[in-house]
Amino acid sequence: MSKKGRLYGVGIGPGDPELLTLKALRLLQAAPVIAYQSATDKESIARKIIAPYLSGNQIEVLYHLPRALEPEKAQSIYDREVEPIAAHLEAGRDVVVVCEGDPFFYGSFMYVFTRLSEKYETEVVPGVSSLMACPVALGVPFTYYNDVLTVLPAPLPAEELISQLLTTDAAAIMKIGRHFTKVRDILHQLGLASRALYIERATMAQQRIVPLDEVDPAEVPYFAMIIIPSKSRL
Amino acid sequence: MSKKGRLYGVGIGPGDPELLTLKALRLLQAAPVIAYQSATDKESIARKIIAPYLSGNQIEVLYHLPRALEPEKAQSIYDREVEPIAAHLEAGRDVVVVCEGDPFFYGSFMYVFTRLSEKYETEVVPGVSSLMACPVALGVPFTYYNDVLTVLPAPLPAEELISQLLTTDAAAIMKIGRHFTKVRDILHQLGLASRALYIERATMAQQRIVPLDEVDPAEVPYFAMIIIPSKSRL
Repeated sequence: MSKKGRLYGVGIGPGDPELLTLKALRLLQAAPVIAYQSATDKESIARKIIAPYLSGNQIEVLYHLPRALEPEKAQSIYDREVEPIAAHLEAGRDVVVVCEGDPFFYGSFMYVFTRLSEKYETEVVPGVSSLMACPVALGVPFTYYNDVLTVLPAPLPAEELISQLLTTDAAAIMKIGRHFTKVRDILHQLGLASRALYIERATMAQQRIVPLDEVDPAEVPYFAMIIIPSKSRL
Repeated sequence: MSKKGRLYGVGIGPGDPELLTLKALRLLQAAPVIAYQSATDKESIARKIIAPYLSGNQIEVLYHLPRALEPEKAQSIYDREVEPIAAHLEAGRDVVVVCEGDPFFYGSFMYVFTRLSEKYETEVVPGVSSLMACPVALGVPFTYYNDVLTVLPAPLPAEELISQLLTTDAAAIMKIGRHFTKVRDILHQLGLASRALYIERATMAQQRIVPLDEVDPAEVPYFAMIIIPSKSRL
């Protein structure tokens, strides 16, 4: 019986290819099979990040994880999409699944992990998250000392966002997309708009920083974040 | 008049030297001056992380940021400790200040940033945070989909920790140290102890994972974290 392949879930950071870790690069370049996801039928962002490091001699696998689906409804799609990865592992080939940001922090790799990690030897490598890259790109220290930090996905109901924002020192609101207007209105209502900083596609070539009230709600991408840095000072 | 040096604040990740980013390594190796902090008079952890990459031909600057001080009381100490860094910048030498984890996420670099970034050209490079490294080292997906995540420093009062833990999907409790018993008792009180995972010095050679109720409170280091992963499933 032949040996099964090893599964790697590798964080590749927020967008700048130079923000890969040394470990991510080593594993990526050694793997016979590289897998990456796309949320749409368009180009895979993860593929774009690692493009400078691909030799052209590796097998590449694209899998789709549609973003709009409720997780409960999407089980059969996810089950099907990880099948090509499982097939390579079954055939004894190691597979490096690359993942924007960090694999276990709202990461697309978790859909693969929950389905395959019990069956195949698995190693996960943390990456630089957009949660760290956005404050750095904005040039603002984010959390100090004994601050409480709350990370909030923008699709949450307004009441939930409000109660969380009222009880924290610093916040990151992620996955803004079509929820921008709701979030902006809440920030004004709570007196937080003057502290809130908006950024799109941090560290990517298309990075944009726009004052909150000048953002066009129709043009806000999924990879937009609003950072409310701590008021503490050192 | 000679040109002033450029200040870099560079995240070097949670402990494993292979979790430096490619950008961190490039800047580190090019700099004439490397600065790192120590919270005690003992060895600098940051110095230990970057040791494999030092040529021996660089000027090294150690600065102290005592951890136990209230930030308000410590201003004069911090002002004094950044002086040697400022002197190198003034003399036209670039200085790379390396910082465990990420520079703007509870990072020691912020004490330097707030004092020197208006006077010297400054670039900050994000790093892999222990917030991402701990769940990966524990092997547990941390946050999914629309989860709320709360980051809580353990020195906070018990009532604050309790109210935050009651209203979040996932949590990280950082800087455990001598606050372990308080935190463990709260987790039992809230029925969270069975989900809570304890880890010390994630990704370092001395990494230890211990069941919560087997931890010796007298031996808990500052760099210990308790992770409460989301209950969501994909």
